[in-house]
Amino acid sequence: MKPIYEVAARAGIDEEHLELYGKYKAKLNPSLTEEHKDRPDGKLVLVTAVNPTPAGEGKTLTTIGLAQALNALGTKTVAALREPSLGPCFGMKGGATGGGRAQIVPAEDINLHFTGDLHAISSAHNLLAAMIDNHVYHGNALRLDPKRIVWKRAVDMNDRGLRSIVTGLGAGNGLPQESGFLITSASEVMAVLCLSENAADLKERLKRIVVGYTTEGEAVTAGDLHAAEGMAILLKDAVKPNLVQTLDGTPVIVHGGPFANIAHGCSSVIGTKTALKLGDVVVTEAGFGAELGAEKFFDIKCRQAGLQPDAAVLVVTAKALKYNGGVPVKELGEENPEALKAGLGNMRRHLRNLRRFGVPVLAAVNRFAADPESELRLILDACAELGVPAELSDVWAEGAAGGEALARALLRALEQPSAYKPLYGLTPSLKDKIGTIVTELYGGSGVDYSPAASKALADFERRGFGGLPVCMAKTPYSFSDQASLLGAPEGFAVSVSRVSLSAGAGFVVVETGNTMTMPGLPKAPAAQRMTLEEDGTIEGLL
Amino acid sequence: MKPIYEVAARAGIDEEHLELYGKYKAKLNPSLTEEHKDRPDGKLVLVTAVNPTPAGEGKTLTTIGLAQALNALGTKTVAALREPSLGPCFGMKGGATGGGRAQIVPAEDINLHFTGDLHAISSAHNLLAAMIDNHVYHGNALRLDPKRIVWKRAVDMNDRGLRSIVTGLGAGNGLPQESGFLITSASEVMAVLCLSENAADLKERLKRIVVGYTTEGEAVTAGDLHAAEGMAILLKDAVKPNLVQTLDGTPVIVHGGPFANIAHGCSSVIGTKTALKLGDVVVTEAGFGAELGAEKFFDIKCRQAGLQPDAAVLVVTAKALKYNGGVPVKELGEENPEALKAGLGNMRRHLRNLRRFGVPVLAAVNRFAADPESELRLILDACAELGVPAELSDVWAEGAAGGEALARALLRALEQPSAYKPLYGLTPSLKDKIGTIVTELYGGSGVDYSPAASKALADFERRGFGGLPVCMAKTPYSFSDQASLLGAPEGFAVSVSRVSLSAGAGFVVVETGNTMTMPGLPKAPAAQRMTLEEDGTIEGLL
Repeated sequence: MKPIYEVAARAGIDEEHLELYGKYKAKLNPSLTEEHKDRPDGKLVLVTAVNPTPAGEGKTLTTIGLAQALNALGTKTVAALREPSLGPCFGMKGGATGGGRAQIVPAEDINLHFTGDLHAISSAHNLLAAMIDNHVYHGNALRLDPKRIVWKRAVDMNDRGLRSIVTGLGAGNGLPQESGFLITSASEVMAVLCLSENAADLKERLKRIVVGYTTEGEAVTAGDLHAAEGMAILLKDAVKPNLVQTLDGTPVIVHGGPFANIAHGCSSVIGTKTALKLGDVVVTEAGFGAELGAEKFFDIKCRQAGLQPDAAVLVVTAKALKYNGGVPVKELGEENPEALKAGLGNMRRHLRNLRRFGVPVLAAVNRFAADPESELRLILDACAELGVPAELSDVWAEGAAGGEALARALLRALEQPSAYKPLYGLTPSLKDKIGTIVTELYGGSGVDYSPAASKALADFERRGFGGLPVCMAKTPYSFSDQASLLGAPEGFAVSVSRVSLSAGAGFVVVETGNTMTMPGLPKAPAAQRMTLEEDGTIEGLL
Repeated sequence: MKPIYEVAARAGIDEEHLELYGKYKAKLNPSLTEEHKDRPDGKLVLVTAVNPTPAGEGKTLTTIGLAQALNALGTKTVAALREPSLGPCFGMKGGATGGGRAQIVPAEDINLHFTGDLHAISSAHNLLAAMIDNHVYHGNALRLDPKRIVWKRAVDMNDRGLRSIVTGLGAGNGLPQESGFLITSASEVMAVLCLSENAADLKERLKRIVVGYTTEGEAVTAGDLHAAEGMAILLKDAVKPNLVQTLDGTPVIVHGGPFANIAHGCSSVIGTKTALKLGDVVVTEAGFGAELGAEKFFDIKCRQAGLQPDAAVLVVTAKALKYNGGVPVKELGEENPEALKAGLGNMRRHLRNLRRFGVPVLAAVNRFAADPESELRLILDACAELGVPAELSDVWAEGAAGGEALARALLRALEQPSAYKPLYGLTPSLKDKIGTIVTELYGGSGVDYSPAASKALADFERRGFGGLPVCMAKTPYSFSDQASLLGAPEGFAVSVSRVSLSAGAGFVVVETGNTMTMPGLPKAPAAQRMTLEEDGTIEGLL
């Protein structure tokens, strides 16, 4: 690892703009944005993927490796990634910092507390929760209806016991009410931080957060409770983007980590815009598969922030396509070109979808060591049939060198003009927007609404929120809302069970099925297998 | 403010041992301890106070100012303080960083997230909670009795609604059970961190934490759940002491902030021992009044850690003594020598008590601008009668200069030999130890135990924990367990309602009355009056 000020210098960042967190992490002060405000922006490239599968697609890995490869080719490139959440690190999976020779470092620090952003977000979230409860306890001047408080609490831990709780039991202990905890990534405060332009915008968004309704049905906001300033104070450092590096010293901004279901699943706008001033190319990613993450990247993040994306890269693997072609997880290691062909429809639909956003599209075939050449050939041929440039990517094993072909293809794609446009306009009704996504992008036949969802959508329109974009919460495993419908399903209707308002983030969350906002730990959590050695070495975290 | 590496250099700390957190905060790496291990220790001075009152005594202020004054006199001095908790900052009071010209800086950062230690402690605490619930959910191989789980969850926020909750409601959401949240300072993990000698000791103590009992009545520990390694990983940076500075550049170690009731209320052993290698004198403090904080400092912290304290300074104010003499809070500004005389008994008992620990004792009369000279004279005279050196301290208004007389008196006291000894030995029974504290120190007539407390004490003895020291949880406002018994009450019995085991920290908590482990917010919390200005300035936090 190089000292972070050297990485910063390579990215043209003067030391005065750095706030060091140890030798290898730094926050970037707003003074940097001020200094760079007249610089032209670099090109913005989104890395997305086919529907996720248990085999893993390597989206973060490819994003990191592609940035490394571009730099190795002499194109000044910065990656912009999401911050990992503590909960999953101690639960099922390892870190979220890439792997092999395409990693960001210091990986352990990034996966643990990093620079404290998620803790600050939890604190701001929970300050608001405490102030709501306290307001009702001390006289309830705003006439908040205790049964219509929608703000829960947040913790960055996988703890299923906190999903559904009753608080305020016992004399003098506040308000007895049904409540629960979200994992911090699912907090609207996280989405707000990720979509804010700067600290002032952050505060205005915090003020707009709707925490509940009065007995007369009027919305009550964090601003009404005078909570937004305190929350903004808790977030004053968290709002600054974090700089780290890849194994080969490529600068990487890691900032913000919103859930890709209840939120928009993209790294922060501030981080992305900072990166665009630093790099000629910025490679970023969005959560889950392209029908969720990329759609929200284009329709929410880019639109709100006025970003002009220049290309999209779809990560695909042989295993993922075989899985989509019906092969069980345990048999994915076996050669099975017929199944792969059957699964190609998933990739084709994602590629066609991405083109609808007006950007040049290419495919990155993330290679695993044991992948049969014949299967990889089938994928490349399918892309060629669609006229989509496709390259093998071997960045896990080879780092920058393994991504060189992909990087060259991307640079060619970036010579084409981009005509980015969102999938839907903001003027149509919320139901029209949802309908467009389901029929045009998912390939579904229509949308069924629960009576509660229909009523709430009408209510949001009446309150003046009809012009917001929608944020779909759906199983990531299928184009549909049913995890088992793999490949490229057709003729399905999507069922909307529940909708909720994120007025601070600026979208309406549309839940299909039961959206999980607090994961649980598996039977043998990763935490049980970790060790901290005497010399400080950590085993089992990554 | 000087860059922290300059402050470090002044304290003889090479830059290689620093882990920077911005320009003005740093963590000290264990390599420093290694380098300094053969250095002689400095002298250790405890600053404590009469019973706290609503008027404020200025214990932290005096600790800071005294360290400044000693340095100004040419005695190399380091202060060792506790870390503030976020909860109270947003609730009732301002920060915990001193005031006037005796402050530690950067005060706002220290009062907010600082270097993330409290967040790390919350995370480690909550990882254990999640692993307990998860263990029971996934088959409960250890046969943990769901009704005898004693480990709650923790959050660093004043949130009364979380004191008493029911978790795990709804299908698939874990185990329905009564539970609650502590504020993080009340977590045993905080006490463990503060009493640990190093990272290896920390891990061993974490393993010993008792989380509940099996259906057969056997204790189940964090070690049994294989949770200690993951917790230690989350605490790997939190265990390193933090270096900051006073307004005049005196080095200050701020590390650990355990509650002074359910825990021992002293800054960390690691921080104190580090300071002792850096300064010829180390000034530290303990929570609440001397009968609680100082007692635990001597009987728990110094004994466990093998520290040899060299002197104790009792902070006293005219207002506090008038309050103890029966004057209502609103009339404390008025001259009232008779009331002050009536309250002197409180100071006298604390001074006599402190002498029992074998250390030289002196009094610091913390002066407020409007204090009548005649009242201050009465205090100084009363000290003289006891043969206790006493000096006025004016460090709020004058910084180091205002503490010069006190510092000179302390240096004279430090020329005397110290014959530190704890109040009680560890061999007697737990009840004998409690009895000694109540009768010898509090001035009470005896102890009444609830049947549950008696049963639990017998149980702890049977399990082999009879040799632990006791950690008294009691109202801080009186020598007794009744807040209204001011001054120097006599003839009272202390009622022990509940006892609990902190096997990781290494003490038995003895609760008299209802120990508050989660504060609430006041009607108009400080958070409502705070503002974050465009230029980053924070109003209303300090």
